[in-house]
Amino acid sequence: MYNYRQTPDGRYLLSVDNHCEITEALAAFCEEKQIKSGIVGGLAAISEATFRFLDPATKQYVDRTFAEQMEVTCLTGNISRKDGKPYLHIHVTASRRDYTCIGGHLLTARVNGACELYVEDYGLEGVGRRFDPETGLNLYDFR
Amino acid sequence: MYNYRQTPDGRYLLSVDNHCEITEALAAFCEEKQIKSGIVGGLAAISEATFRFLDPATKQYVDRTFAEQMEVTCLTGNISRKDGKPYLHIHVTASRRDYTCIGGHLLTARVNGACELYVEDYGLEGVGRRFDPETGLNLYDFR
Amino acid sequence: MYNYRQTPDGRYLLSVDNHCEITEALAAFCEEKQIKSGIVGGLAAISEATFRFLDPATKQYVDRTFAEQMEVTCLTGNISRKDGKPYLHIHVTASRRDYTCIGGHLLTARVNGACELYVEDYGLEGVGRRFDPETGLNLYDFR
Repeated sequence: MYNYRQTPDGRYLLSVDNHCEITEALAAFCEEKQIKSGIVGGLAAISEATFRFLDPATKQYVDRTFAEQMEVTCLTGNISRKDGKPYLHIHVTASRRDYTCIGGHLLTARVNGACELYVEDYGLEGVGRRFDPETGLNLYDFR
Repeated sequence: MYNYRQTPDGRYLLSVDNHCEITEALAAFCEEKQIKSGIVGGLAAISEATFRFLDPATKQYVDRTFAEQMEVTCLTGNISRKDGKPYLHIHVTASRRDYTCIGGHLLTARVNGACELYVEDYGLEGVGRRFDPETGLNLYDFR
Repeated sequence: MYNYRQTPDGRYLLSVDNHCEITEALAAFCEEKQIKSGIVGGLAAISEATFRFLDPATKQYVDRTFAEQMEVTCLTGNISRKDGKPYLHIHVTASRRDYTCIGGHLLTARVNGACELYVEDYGLEGVGRRFDPETGLNLYDFR
């Protein structure tokens, strides 16, 4: 699902295999390396992405899938823990065939080409998530 | 205004509180931690952002405010010092309700939802700013 | 072509001079510092950018140049080695005069204003590239 190289101080270059789903690969990687907190970034080419828009006024989620070849011009996100598992929060900017950009909160994205990420393990314990009723979100919970 | 967790080597996970203005929170954080140089990145949901476009031909600033719910798909910036205070240079990409992206040089942005940043303190002294008449910008000044 | 400041552990703040081409400056910088693997990120203002779109179905490259003033809202990329030289893989998101964003796989971009990057030298040997016939890409090769 992926290959990686690792520095002595917990920084990783991560190559996600072609045709894999990015969040699934990242979660498996974080589980394998037991990363409890950190950041992730990088670039990719994808054939499909689903973004979620949350309207805070209505607390309605609107999910939309774009099924087309795109370049991920920027993936940025963070890693924490929730319910004993890695919790990923990832936003993506992607450029389309006409070079215009779309993006948002990432639910899923499928690699079609390369997917080259970096992951930095911050090594901090106690970086969790708690549900916040005001926003309807799982906010950072620093214990 | 914010919560954070800190690694021993000067890396921070920073959660800016809902309804706060991001650059104000970041400047206060840099002041509190006495960060003299470094980088900042991350994601957010915002209800308003003001971007500045500088036309180098005319040296005219054009500022525009977008007052709508958006996802910050990528915030990227750096921290230096000017006149004894933290100097932030931040660019933002944001996705709108229709998932299309806008962005630019950030003047201000108001959190509406989560704002999850990382800050890396590079610990370098003498990373300042000097006004450059050719560009009309406060360029990096490495002394 | 550039100025920089350097931390003891191989992190750099890099200022690319006005009117320089960004990938050329970055390659020269990586050569000078003998960076064999790492990441690059940051922001800029540019007067021109050329993006490459690869259609995996046809394996046709489509390159397009945008000759206009833009803000690079996010540059993200990585550094590896190929044929004994630095190999840069960079994606860019850029905002136009009307604040809408375009972007993609970067071929070249010319600074017009500031270009403020960070480079993190991961210090890993053996991060190369190999041509992959399936995708038509030079994928990461971790030896």
